[in-house]
Amino acid sequence: MKTHGLHAYIFPSTDPHSGEYTPEHWKARQWISGFDGSAGTAVVTLTDAALWTDSRYFLAAEEQLRDTPFQLLKQGLKGTPNIAEWLATQAHLWEEIDDINIGADLEDEYSDLSELDHPHGKTQKAWGGATCHYNYRVGLDAWCNTIASTKTLESELMVHGMHLHTDLSPFDKEKGTRKRPLWTDRPALPLSPIEIQPLTLAGEAAHNKIERVREALRQQHCDATIVSLLDEVAWLFNLRGTDVHCTPLFVSYALVTREKAMLFINKKKLTPDVKSYLKKEEIDVCSYDAIAEAIVKISEEAETPYCFLLDPSATNARLKNILDEANMNYLLAPSVIAPMKSVKNEAEIAGFRSAMLKDGVAMVKFLRWLRPAVEAAARGEGAPVTEMSADRKLTELRAEQPLFRDLSFDTIAGYGAHGAIVHYEATPDTDIVLEPHGLLLLDSGAQYQDGTTDITRTIALGPLTDEERHDYTLVLRCHIRLAMSKFPSGSSGTQLDVCARYAMWQEGINFLHGTGHGVGSYLNVHEGPHQIRMNYMPAPLQEGMTVTIEPGIYRSGKHGVRTENTMLITHFIEGEYGPFLQFEPLTLCPIDTTPIILSEMQSDEIDYLNRYHQRVYDLLSPLLDEEECEWLQIATRPVQQS
Amino acid sequence: MKTHGLHAYIFPSTDPHSGEYTPEHWKARQWISGFDGSAGTAVVTLTDAALWTDSRYFLAAEEQLRDTPFQLLKQGLKGTPNIAEWLATQAHLWEEIDDINIGADLEDEYSDLSELDHPHGKTQKAWGGATCHYNYRVGLDAWCNTIASTKTLESELMVHGMHLHTDLSPFDKEKGTRKRPLWTDRPALPLSPIEIQPLTLAGEAAHNKIERVREALRQQHCDATIVSLLDEVAWLFNLRGTDVHCTPLFVSYALVTREKAMLFINKKKLTPDVKSYLKKEEIDVCSYDAIAEAIVKISEEAETPYCFLLDPSATNARLKNILDEANMNYLLAPSVIAPMKSVKNEAEIAGFRSAMLKDGVAMVKFLRWLRPAVEAAARGEGAPVTEMSADRKLTELRAEQPLFRDLSFDTIAGYGAHGAIVHYEATPDTDIVLEPHGLLLLDSGAQYQDGTTDITRTIALGPLTDEERHDYTLVLRCHIRLAMSKFPSGSSGTQLDVCARYAMWQEGINFLHGTGHGVGSYLNVHEGPHQIRMNYMPAPLQEGMTVTIEPGIYRSGKHGVRTENTMLITHFIEGEYGPFLQFEPLTLCPIDTTPIILSEMQSDEIDYLNRYHQRVYDLLSPLLDEEECEWLQIATRPVQQS
Repeated sequence: MKTHGLHAYIFPSTDPHSGEYTPEHWKARQWISGFDGSAGTAVVTLTDAALWTDSRYFLAAEEQLRDTPFQLLKQGLKGTPNIAEWLATQAHLWEEIDDINIGADLEDEYSDLSELDHPHGKTQKAWGGATCHYNYRVGLDAWCNTIASTKTLESELMVHGMHLHTDLSPFDKEKGTRKRPLWTDRPALPLSPIEIQPLTLAGEAAHNKIERVREALRQQHCDATIVSLLDEVAWLFNLRGTDVHCTPLFVSYALVTREKAMLFINKKKLTPDVKSYLKKEEIDVCSYDAIAEAIVKISEEAETPYCFLLDPSATNARLKNILDEANMNYLLAPSVIAPMKSVKNEAEIAGFRSAMLKDGVAMVKFLRWLRPAVEAAARGEGAPVTEMSADRKLTELRAEQPLFRDLSFDTIAGYGAHGAIVHYEATPDTDIVLEPHGLLLLDSGAQYQDGTTDITRTIALGPLTDEERHDYTLVLRCHIRLAMSKFPSGSSGTQLDVCARYAMWQEGINFLHGTGHGVGSYLNVHEGPHQIRMNYMPAPLQEGMTVTIEPGIYRSGKHGVRTENTMLITHFIEGEYGPFLQFEPLTLCPIDTTPIILSEMQSDEIDYLNRYHQRVYDLLSPLLDEEECEWLQIATRPVQQS
Repeated sequence: MKTHGLHAYIFPSTDPHSGEYTPEHWKARQWISGFDGSAGTAVVTLTDAALWTDSRYFLAAEEQLRDTPFQLLKQGLKGTPNIAEWLATQAHLWEEIDDINIGADLEDEYSDLSELDHPHGKTQKAWGGATCHYNYRVGLDAWCNTIASTKTLESELMVHGMHLHTDLSPFDKEKGTRKRPLWTDRPALPLSPIEIQPLTLAGEAAHNKIERVREALRQQHCDATIVSLLDEVAWLFNLRGTDVHCTPLFVSYALVTREKAMLFINKKKLTPDVKSYLKKEEIDVCSYDAIAEAIVKISEEAETPYCFLLDPSATNARLKNILDEANMNYLLAPSVIAPMKSVKNEAEIAGFRSAMLKDGVAMVKFLRWLRPAVEAAARGEGAPVTEMSADRKLTELRAEQPLFRDLSFDTIAGYGAHGAIVHYEATPDTDIVLEPHGLLLLDSGAQYQDGTTDITRTIALGPLTDEERHDYTLVLRCHIRLAMSKFPSGSSGTQLDVCARYAMWQEGINFLHGTGHGVGSYLNVHEGPHQIRMNYMPAPLQEGMTVTIEPGIYRSGKHGVRTENTMLITHFIEGEYGPFLQFEPLTLCPIDTTPIILSEMQSDEIDYLNRYHQRVYDLLSPLLDEEECEWLQIATRPVQQS
């Protein structure tokens, strides 16, 4: 840091492809701090070190940071400073450090300060409380941060007069030097081969998708786009891999221009079949590291100047910097691929239906096994069922199904008070035995080659408290209210979100996670651009999209309830007020009726539940044996108010 | 235009203060085109002229533009180009014009082009369909356009390669020349005196408000703000005027800095009382025209550099240009005054309650008169009641009330099919006689010195069709669903909007206007920053805000229904999920129960209606005579399902 004139360096948990799960190769924050949670940012200064993480990881982080120089800063707690605020409180410690390089080779960079978008100019301010430190430079690896997040961080630092320096990755070997990289045991990128997603499942050939991308670019007067989200590359070229946890992706970039489609990937991952497929689809292959040169070269060679479309929330800042340095044009705008990918074609919808049948069969087998197994264990007959063993059992049942490839995320199996921890994942340390009373919250899903699933059921293992029954009923009502709603085509998830909260808000109850997200077609289980949540999510809901509905109630120290189905958005009616859409449940699995307080339900909500259960029975029973059918018939029989 | 090197000039319908109603002085679009509607934009090019307006004014504009050079372009119809698109189709006509000044004195401006935020650079593009015309310049008066709208227009023009030139107002006398201004009979600014809003009604002294503004600026590290919205000036200084239609405002700017508060106004409008009041509150007075010099001078004289906070949606672009030219700092951010003004203090809430009692009394007297008068006229007894005469009658009844000052907007009285025209305003040409059948939609309000009112009732004048009754019931249900809702403090209007649409969406029906808006305290009847609508309105709803709830259904050629109350946002409960808020109706006036199909209502909706009516009766009856009370008792008696 001193050599490069940096006073602080930031290690986020993200990677060049902005995915939900970071491959080991980019886990620099874990390397520097030892903290291995999925979310967190480490900052090292010339004098100190700190790590930010959220409430999910407070305990684990405290443990892992013990006896390290890192202090823990708890995100979301009142009074916790953000990175820029914390750095501002540290800056005075750096004044006495005099062996840091602020020599002539860095002066050019300082002269750029006036171009930055800072409202206060370069003077120290007495009023307003902000103190400026214009001599302090904060480092960040632009490869591992999006354009948008870098911009935000830049603004936050500028309020305190600090300058962000993004072109230095401390883990790469420096060009032209013989210095060893700092991170000597850095894991390599995975080399596992990729496979072709057959046209029967993908529903549209890659060259067709590429043409649609070109048309969308043309409409925005752009000539090319860099695709850096791994699920967008996979969707675009109809390829799948195994580089990322629970997700069939492979590390790569794509580049689509007026004339060319290019895949940037380690060529060792390509089988002969995939190579000839890519040739047939007219997709050029380049090495993964060649992306930077390629975008400059393509643009330079073009007959008329190129304008790139870059999605600032998806593209890493280094690629934008490369275009800046090469004096290239670009338009910052949302990905043109995300909306195409989110609307499923007929083959994809058929695949979802097939995957949901299989997932429903596995869930029915699991649910039929669960309660008796818990009861038997409580009587001392058979092995105890724990959160983790229940998860294993469910995974085994899913793995028996055709085209099963993986789970789509780590199962959340939270019994009793664990159900109130929204992102709970049982570990050997926390794993507890399920007893024949109370609620088990079970949020799980799988990757089948024909579709991705995501389902939450909350299951009564025996007697419940009145509060558990009331909360269960309220969550079900909220789920059904949104599931029944009709809405104008183009409405956003933000507009609909309250439908899944209205009933609980009437009692002053709320849940602080989203109500729903898109689900990929053998891709990410959390897929955009649409979401249903309280924050602003402008992407319009459209016919053919998948989306989950998953309201919940969490009573800290007591229990948690969530009921989730994955839905397909379908046509409802079109009249003088334009086209209206509706939700059709794709998920096929009984919803436990034993906890419901029927007198608290409205009659149209009960009708919806009974219709859903009839459908579950009709579709799943042909796939079950006689005893399973009997169980399902009881589980799905109509309920009615007395 | 030729002298100034302009190929086109745009005349919008806005003014320097971005108000809902434009004072005559700034009606340049009306002057140039003859079209007098409230919304519309005229464009004059070297070869042609055009006027854009929306469906409300298609007929009037066609009439008024006949035999003028202006062609009418209908906004909202498919295929209608926007201004930039239309100019691009005209540009080839200007190629042959050679007596336009593109001399050396303009060259400097052209050299700025590269700084503009255009993704394509300066070359002509073949791909993507956009043709560029970098030699064409479009004029616009920056005084009359906000920073945000100017920026948008600039981007739209740049897509077609045209350059916006905003520093030229064609109606001012040119400095240093003896040329007469073009608009010779331009109306002067009004000189009517302003008055003090007493502290008993305003609830907070001006110097207090000024201190709160300074604190809010400090929190954003800013030193000063320019206040150009007239209702913000009026609120800040507790002053009112009569310069604007239906709104107690006066033409002025305010400037609040660390040390000073200044009012820019024609001093002739100040009575001795107001002068000494301003002195007491330590508000300096400057002439209206001095704003430009003053902001530069204040900033230059400051000991440390100033940063201004400018609201880009409220501040005109000329003021920003002045800061740019003087190399001043500014932060573009939402007004700090709007959120303060929107939360009413106790005195303002008491004023609202008082105003609502008076408005309720006037409405009851009117409703009691209406149906018998229509029936009598139909029998040939008494004068016919028309849309306009009903409006006059209601206005008379309001004017009898203490502290009545004006209507708060032009009454919408739409009978039968007129009710389906959302912004209908009866004129002698359209005025029709009310008959003893069908629905009258009546949206009206008043300015009392203690509060502003806004109420819509849809009144059955006799027998109704089944569709009218069904739509009436559905609108009432939608109104009540939102009115009953509870929500976490800080929710936005966008989140709640669907509550007032859910029931009609289930039938594929929608309305295309907002569901609600804030209401000023003897200020604008449409007040921000919060709104309840389908589009994104991020301003959080907070305790103490007023807001209307006004869903509607419009059946073109048949009827319109809307039911609107003005609500106060109050505390509901605070528990483990934080504080929750609710709506309390401020408006006190019976809702016609005769059209309701009770079997279509849910029981909690009926309970809400009955509770509301009980409250209306309890609060209004002490203010009515015996016969009026009898009428009110019948109008508000509880309804129940059989």
